Parts: sequence; structure tokens; C-alpha cells
Amino acid sequence: MSILVKPPFFGLLCNLIEAYMMDQIQATIVTIGDELLIGQVIDTNSAYIAQKLNSIGVDVRQRIAVGDDVESITKALDTAIAQSQVVILTGGLGPTADDITKPLLNRYFGGKMIVDQPSLDHISYIFEQIHKKPMIERNRKQAEVPDVCEVLFNQSGTAPGMLFKKNDAFIFSLPGVPHEMQWLTNEKVLPILLERLKLGVIAHRTLLTAGVGESFLAESIIDFETSLPDTIKLAYLPSYGMVRLRLTGKSDNTAILNSQLDGLFAQLKEAVKDYLVTDKDEPLEVVVGRLLKDQKHTVATAESCTGGYIGHLLSKHAGSSSFFTGSVVSYDNRIKTEFLDVPTSILQTVGAVSKEAVEQMAVAIRSKMKTDFGISVSGIMGPSGQTDEKPLGMVWIGVSNKEKVVSKVFYLRFDRQKNIEVTANQAINLLRLLIINKI
Amino acid sequence: MSILVKPPFFGLLCNLIEAYMMDQIQATIVTIGDELLIGQVIDTNSAYIAQKLNSIGVDVRQRIAVGDDVESITKALDTAIAQSQVVILTGGLGPTADDITKPLLNRYFGGKMIVDQPSLDHISYIFEQIHKKPMIERNRKQAEVPDVCEVLFNQSGTAPGMLFKKNDAFIFSLPGVPHEMQWLTNEKVLPILLERLKLGVIAHRTLLTAGVGESFLAESIIDFETSLPDTIKLAYLPSYGMVRLRLTGKSDNTAILNSQLDGLFAQLKEAVKDYLVTDKDEPLEVVVGRLLKDQKHTVATAESCTGGYIGHLLSKHAGSSSFFTGSVVSYDNRIKTEFLDVPTSILQTVGAVSKEAVEQMAVAIRSKMKTDFGISVSGIMGPSGQTDEKPLGMVWIGVSNKEKVVSKVFYLRFDRQKNIEVTANQAINLLRLLIINKI
Repeated sequence: MSILVKPPFFGLLCNLIEAYMMDQIQATIVTIGDELLIGQVIDTNSAYIAQKLNSIGVDVRQRIAVGDDVESITKALDTAIAQSQVVILTGGLGPTADDITKPLLNRYFGGKMIVDQPSLDHISYIFEQIHKKPMIERNRKQAEVPDVCEVLFNQSGTAPGMLFKKNDAFIFSLPGVPHEMQWLTNEKVLPILLERLKLGVIAHRTLLTAGVGESFLAESIIDFETSLPDTIKLAYLPSYGMVRLRLTGKSDNTAILNSQLDGLFAQLKEAVKDYLVTDKDEPLEVVVGRLLKDQKHTVATAESCTGGYIGHLLSKHAGSSSFFTGSVVSYDNRIKTEFLDVPTSILQTVGAVSKEAVEQMAVAIRSKMKTDFGISVSGIMGPSGQTDEKPLGMVWIGVSNKEKVVSKVFYLRFDRQKNIEVTANQAINLLRLLIINKI
Repeated sequence: MSILVKPPFFGLLCNLIEAYMMDQIQATIVTIGDELLIGQVIDTNSAYIAQKLNSIGVDVRQRIAVGDDVESITKALDTAIAQSQVVILTGGLGPTADDITKPLLNRYFGGKMIVDQPSLDHISYIFEQIHKKPMIERNRKQAEVPDVCEVLFNQSGTAPGMLFKKNDAFIFSLPGVPHEMQWLTNEKVLPILLERLKLGVIAHRTLLTAGVGESFLAESIIDFETSLPDTIKLAYLPSYGMVRLRLTGKSDNTAILNSQLDGLFAQLKEAVKDYLVTDKDEPLEVVVGRLLKDQKHTVATAESCTGGYIGHLLSKHAGSSSFFTGSVVSYDNRIKTEFLDVPTSILQTVGAVSKEAVEQMAVAIRSKMKTDFGISVSGIMGPSGQTDEKPLGMVWIGVSNKEKVVSKVFYLRFDRQKNIEVTANQAINLLRLLIINKI
């Protein structure tokens, strides 16, 4: 294509070409491994990569998962290169014999295998200095790469990453071990793309609501949604009995896009203000952790049916030791009595899944661990344990502070694992409501 | 194609055709949702579906994730139908306006929308009888389906599943809400496929090893691996500092395949017997739960850095109340002293991340909760908290029974979340070794 038009249209044309080129920066993620096709492992790698590409304005159009066989990988590679300028492959680079990706890439891009000395030095170092074990031939082979690739030195492991070019496409091959894939994505893939491509911007605004169903939420913001410009999309993402709303926009101008999104997001927040938990894309427990930290307050949990999962959520993020004191998991009813002073009379009459039991547990854990707030849960997570009065999924949740204890019953309809997760999230949300004086 | 050959070759030909047809039963899973492409949610649905299809002998060739836009979904549908006889779509059937799948399918298969009365009755029932809220138009629309599909009545939610046929392909469309997708997969998709297709068999044998790295494991079974027939594949799946090995075979004859796999699996188990944890595809905590149940023994945990995650793992599976008594999560050092009698002198000299502290914790939790076994952990999960003597990822783990307490130090190299998961798994593995008298 040749450009014959001269100014004054030239600038406009350049803008059009730029917008067109910008639209071309699309990615396909190809994850390799039979374990993905038989459902033995969950694919978390491609979500990670998608998030990172998105953050620098690369639009992921498709994710493909294929097995460890030459034909499937080759076909996926053909498809990916045909439709995308950026292709990220993960998996298939480990030291064992089920890995066929590297020889395949070598043939596909017409190279021959050579030893990459920096990678070999690094692998030797890991084995000899860290593992204190001799390096075996299988590990030495990990330092071999096709001579047609740009080697992405892997500080975090033994399999080097590789970058190939075909036509205008950048094809990255990364190991499937999550922390190695993550390190290479952040230290190599993103800097290379930022440096060598002209990137547009994709931006999101996300908020979390609680206490309202997806359909009713949609009805209450129908005017907002129908008035959205074509370039902005609204998505509903139900999560643990709450609903996340996300606005997404795409542009070649960061400032204009952010200003447009900020304006619309302010309208959306106003429209859902009665249910708003946070206007950031963050988990509920991070919101509650921040509320506690800001007030220099602490919390402890008394858990039965969640078995420690609430404590885990509260402590899984960095910095939690400033507000999370600890837990008593009273899975056995005897522990409810011995550690949390739940009278045996309560257990024998109304039972452990009751208002009386969780209120006592919430009060006791706060007092015994000397915290500002207490959380307690007791319920029937399934698949058995129900009675005529207490169905599967019935759970009592209690929260306490120095003035009061509040409890609420929920009836959940999921499987055991999901019931545990929803219970934990509802408990943390009830604590949030107590902290902000809404209950 | 016409068949002109007559007996005696006819039977053989039929076998060949049957084998050929059997090979044709391949599936593509298409998951729909922008949230999958920006990495906001992890795709667990397609792993679930893959596992289920696999269990009835349907070979998943590819998984594709696309965004909520007409062009991408249409293209994925074209690809999927061209390459597979079974196509499963999930997502895009919710009540809100970001869902475009149903009208798209209606156009794609050339139908017109009609109301499905059983679905409408069910949706009315859910709103009026269960939610006790009026049904709104948005929900009523969920009962509309293309007249060219076979409706898959959805007992578990408001969005009906749909089955379309094109050429020889079965195209199922399922909602993306996990428990609804799961219910429809089990109650509708699998029975329909089993009834209407002539299915081959795929079978797996999986075992879990601990205490050996992937490369060394591979070296030690290299003779076994090279002697495997072409029809059987061996895969290495590293998980939480352990390695899972999986044998996979495919055949049209269940009995022959199982017998072949059983023979090879026995050889494999013998080859890795020093490291073998379980010869089933099950999580480590299920193995340990079974050991405890069989001996009618109980366990309690004293957790610091894992914040309750070990208790969660031990209690997340059904039936855990027979062996899991409870936990004390002593996130704050004060709780280590007040609840687990760790002397302040230990905390002030060697510190909380020490052999002395975890051994005291393991002994105290067993004694205070009156259990047969105790587990304790204390470590530095990151991203900060390290000292000159105690690096990031350093963690002490203790286990106790009535005769002794054993402790071990680990140095982990992952991020905070992964360090927590690996610590919990290593702690449960140490308990396993104590239960079976290997430490």
C-alpha cells in the first residue's frame, strides 16, 4: 500500500492508519498440556497472561488450550499467527520426556538447536550451588534453543523463554511452571512488547456490590446501560453471592479514555450506591482488611463449617498481621465448649447450627483473643448432615464488637466447596457492615 | 462412500470403520466471556467439562476461550464444528444484557425464538416460591429458546441448556454459572452422548510421589518410559513440591485397555515405590484423611503463617469431621503464648520461626485439643518479613503424636500465595510420614 495523499488530509490519514494499526495489536494465548484437556489441572496461566497483556493495551482475542501432540500444537500455532500479532505459548518446556514443544518450534521456524551458554551457566549454578546435586543430561538439554530465536534468559528457573518472529508476529514461548512463566512475562515479554509495538490502551473500571441479585441490579441500572457509548462495555460478574460490575473501554488516547471512563464510572457508582462494597477491582477481604487497618482495629475468627477458610482469606494478602490476630477452628463440638464456652445446653437443645451458638462463639473469640471484632460461623456445608429443621446449606453467621453481636442465617444452594467459599465471603461482608455501622 | 466389499472381509472392515468412527468422537469446548480474556476470572468450567467428557471416552482436542462478541463466538463455533463432533459452549446465557449467545445461536442455526413452557414454569416457581420476589421481564426472557434446538431443562437454575445439530455435530449450549453448568453436564449432556454416540474409551492411572524432583524421577523411570507402547502416554505433573505421574491410554475395548494399563501401572508403582504417596488421582489431604479414619485417629492444627489453610484443606472434603478436631490459628505471637504455651523466652531468643516454637506448638495443640496427632507451622511467606538469618520462604513445620514430635525446615521460593499452599501440603505430607512410621 502506498500513500499518495498529501496534507491537509495527511494528518487525518495518519490518525486513521494509526488507529487501524493499533487495532491490529491482538494476542492469542496458547496453553499446551494434556492435563488441560482432561481437566486434571485448572489453567491459571492464561488468566495471568491475559491480565498482564491487557494492562499494556494488548487485546487478547482468543485463548486456545491444546494437548501435548505435534499436530494440535502446530495447528494452534498456525491459527494464532494468522489472527494475532502477539502469540504467547506456555507449557511444554519442562525437563521430562512429555515435552515436545521446543523441537517442534525449531522445525516450525526452520532453525537448528544450539546451546545457549548463559542458560547453561545458570542451570549449572542452580544444580550445583542451590540444589547441591549433580546436573544430569536432561537438565543440560534445557539450555538448548533453536538458533532462530531470541533467548529470554530465565532468572527464575531452568527453562529459557524464546521469542520467534514470523511475518509481523511476535511468538513467545514460555515454560508452564507458574512462577517461571510469571517472571518471564513481567521481565521479558511486557518490556519487549512495550518497546517494539505501538500500543493502544484498554482500561477498566470495576466495582463490587453486595446484597442485590444480578437481575435486579440490571433493572436498576438499565437507563445507564442503554445510554453507554458503543466503545464502552458493561459486564456483570457474579461472585460468591455478590455481583461485580465492570466497564471496559478501548482507545488510542489514554487521557481521553480515562476521563470518559471516570465520568461514566461515577454515574454507575451513584446508581448502585446502596449496594456498593468497593470501587476497585479487589477481593472483599482486602476491602475489610483496609477498613480495619485504617481504624487500627483487629479481628479474630471462630469457625466451624469453614474449617479455617475465613482465617485463610483474611491472612492470604501481604500486611494482614496488622489486623488479623488469629482463629479457633472448633470443628468438633467439644472444642466449641472447651475453647469458646458454648454451653452444652445450647448444643443439646438448639444445636451447633443456631443463632445462640454463633452469637456465643462471636462474643467468646473476641474476648479470648482480645480483638476489636469477632466473626463466627456454623452451618451444614453438605453433602450430608441435614435434618428436617436444618436443610443442607443452612449456615448461621455472627459478628461482634464491644457494643453488640449480630447474627444472620443463610440458605446456600451450592456444593460443599462453593458453600464454604460463599459462607466465608458472606461472613466477611457481615463484618464489613458492622465496621461501617450498617447493621 | 459406498461399501462394496462382502464377507469374509466385511467384519474386518466394520471393525476398521468402527475404530475410525470411534476416533472421530472428539470435542471442542468453547467458553464465552470477556472476563476470561482479561484474566479477571479463572476458567474452571472447561476443566470440569473436559474431565467429564473424558470419563465417557470423548477426547477433548481443544479448548477455546472467546470474548462476548458476535464475530469471535461465530468464528469459534465454525472452527469447533469443523473439527469436532461434540461442541460444548458455556457462558453467555445469564439474565443481563452482556449476554448475546442465545440470539446468535438462533441466527446461526436459522431458528426463531419461542417460549419454552417448562422452563418458564420453572423460572416462575424459583422467583415466586423460593426468592419470594416478582419475576421481571428479563427473567421471563430466559425461557425463550430457538425453535431449532432441543431444550435441556435446567433444574438447577433459570437458564435452560440447548442442544443443536449441524451435519453430524452435537452442539450443546450451557449457562456459565458453575453449579448450573455442572448439573446440566451430568444430567443432560453425558446421558445424551452416551445414548446417541458410539463411544471409545479413554482411561488413566495416576499416582502421586513426594520427596523427589521431576528430573530425578524421570531418570529413575527412563527404562519404563522408553518401553511404553505408542498407545500409552506418560505425563509428569508437578504439584506443590510433589510430582504426579499419569498414564493415559485409548482404545475401543475397555477390558483390554484396563488390563494393559493395570499391568503397566503396577510396573510404574514398583519403580517409584520409595516415593509413592497414593496410586489414586486424589489430593494428598484425602490420603491422610483416609489413613486417620482407618485408624480412628484425630488431628488438630496450630497454624501461624498458613492462617487456617491447613484446617481448610483437612476439612474441605466430605466426612472430615470424623478425624479433624480443630485448629488454633496463632497469627499474632501473643496467641502462640496464650493459647499454645510457647514461652516468651523462645519468641524473644530464637523467634517464632524456629524449631523450638513449632515443636512446642505441635505438642500443645495435640494436648489441648486431645487429639492423636498435631501439626504446626511457622514461617515467612513474603513478600517481606525476612531477616539476615531467616530468608523469605523459610518455614518450620512440626508434627506430633503421643510418642514424639518431629520438625523440619523448608526454604520455599514462590510468591506468598503459593508459599502458603506448598507449606500446607508439606505439613500434611509430614503428618503422613509420621502416621506411617517413616519419620
